Amino acid sequence: MENENLLKQIAFIKEIDKLKYIQRKTRLFNSDRHENDAEHSWHLAMMTIVLAGHANKAIDVLKVVKMVLIHDIVEIDAGDTFIYDTAKNHSNTEEELIAAKRIFGLLPAEQGAEFIAIWEEFEAGTTDEAKFAKSMDRLEPLLQNTSNQGGTWAEFNVGYQQVYEKKKAIKNGSAIIWNYAESLINDSVEQGILKKSTEIE
Amino acid sequence: MENENLLKQIAFIKEIDKLKYIQRKTRLFNSDRHENDAEHSWHLAMMTIVLAGHANKAIDVLKVVKMVLIHDIVEIDAGDTFIYDTAKNHSNTEEELIAAKRIFGLLPAEQGAEFIAIWEEFEAGTTDEAKFAKSMDRLEPLLQNTSNQGGTWAEFNVGYQQVYEKKKAIKNGSAIIWNYAESLINDSVEQGILKKSTEIE
Repeated sequence: MENENLLKQIAFIKEIDKLKYIQRKTRLFNSDRHENDAEHSWHLAMMTIVLAGHANKAIDVLKVVKMVLIHDIVEIDAGDTFIYDTAKNHSNTEEELIAAKRIFGLLPAEQGAEFIAIWEEFEAGTTDEAKFAKSMDRLEPLLQNTSNQGGTWAEFNVGYQQVYEKKKAIKNGSAIIWNYAESLINDSVEQGILKKSTEIE
Repeated sequence: MENENLLKQIAFIKEIDKLKYIQRKTRLFNSDRHENDAEHSWHLAMMTIVLAGHANKAIDVLKVVKMVLIHDIVEIDAGDTFIYDTAKNHSNTEEELIAAKRIFGLLPAEQGAEFIAIWEEFEAGTTDEAKFAKSMDRLEPLLQNTSNQGGTWAEFNVGYQQVYEKKKAIKNGSAIIWNYAESLINDSVEQGILKKSTEIE
């Protein structure tokens, strides 16, 4: 049984290698090169262990790290959805649920169920751990875009109001980090790398 | 003070983005594309949370995850050292220590010291957590090379004995995973993708 479980786990470990091919819209810091989901997930895990002390509530850090490590694995099947794409539903789509069941279903049953539950908790965003995980997921592209003269904001004509609406979720995880993020957003408008309105010029 | 700490942490978070540019010798599964250190670190963290139940001793999973997430960060300054390169010293070189002090030194003092201690614990490889972390670091390229018709073994003329010597460290972290790894190595010899001897033909 132990060996049977190990073989299932190895199959899962091989399968998730595909996350390294899923390209995000955002680019690396001060760079033209797109980030992939595996790099992004590593960065969020690092941010979590570095910034956990700023969480509004005491959080289970290991659980948050698990969340951010696995949060995009469904994109192996479902693809990356751009956060400012208003034509697509972003949370817990049917396609993503099918993907979660297929990919986490490679694991031994109990472990697969645990991973699906963690992913669903992240998607729901209601627990303290999920709120902090989502803060990290919102903060990284903000840091990237401000390092890239506006990055995806400039590339896809995304304005202040849309950015503010998405980024304010950071406050649910950490008021301190949100204060910093809000000042970054305001500075971006002042510097002209984030437009106050998005009228087509 | 809280804000001052946050600014130091943000500077660290930006700096470690450079790990995404450090190329490893190994390639992705069934692929020609080299893996980078950030992707590698993400994969080891995933392997840790999936395989922790097979550890020889009960381990602090969060500590192992931290170890594998940060274990290669010194390579931002010191570069990747190929494990079968006999001309280089692999553990805790002076260059790596200087890198650790510079990069982790961007963090608030207490946190920077904690990260350096975790990295040194990994390098020393004597605690149960470090042994398991090293098992993960040895296992991933074994899985990659067997998926790539020998991968770096074939490319750099590395033979069975050298591979066995490096991989047997897996046993220190998990006897069960080592049983599996040993059979993979033996199968590789049988399949002709790992040479029993490394005489130049």
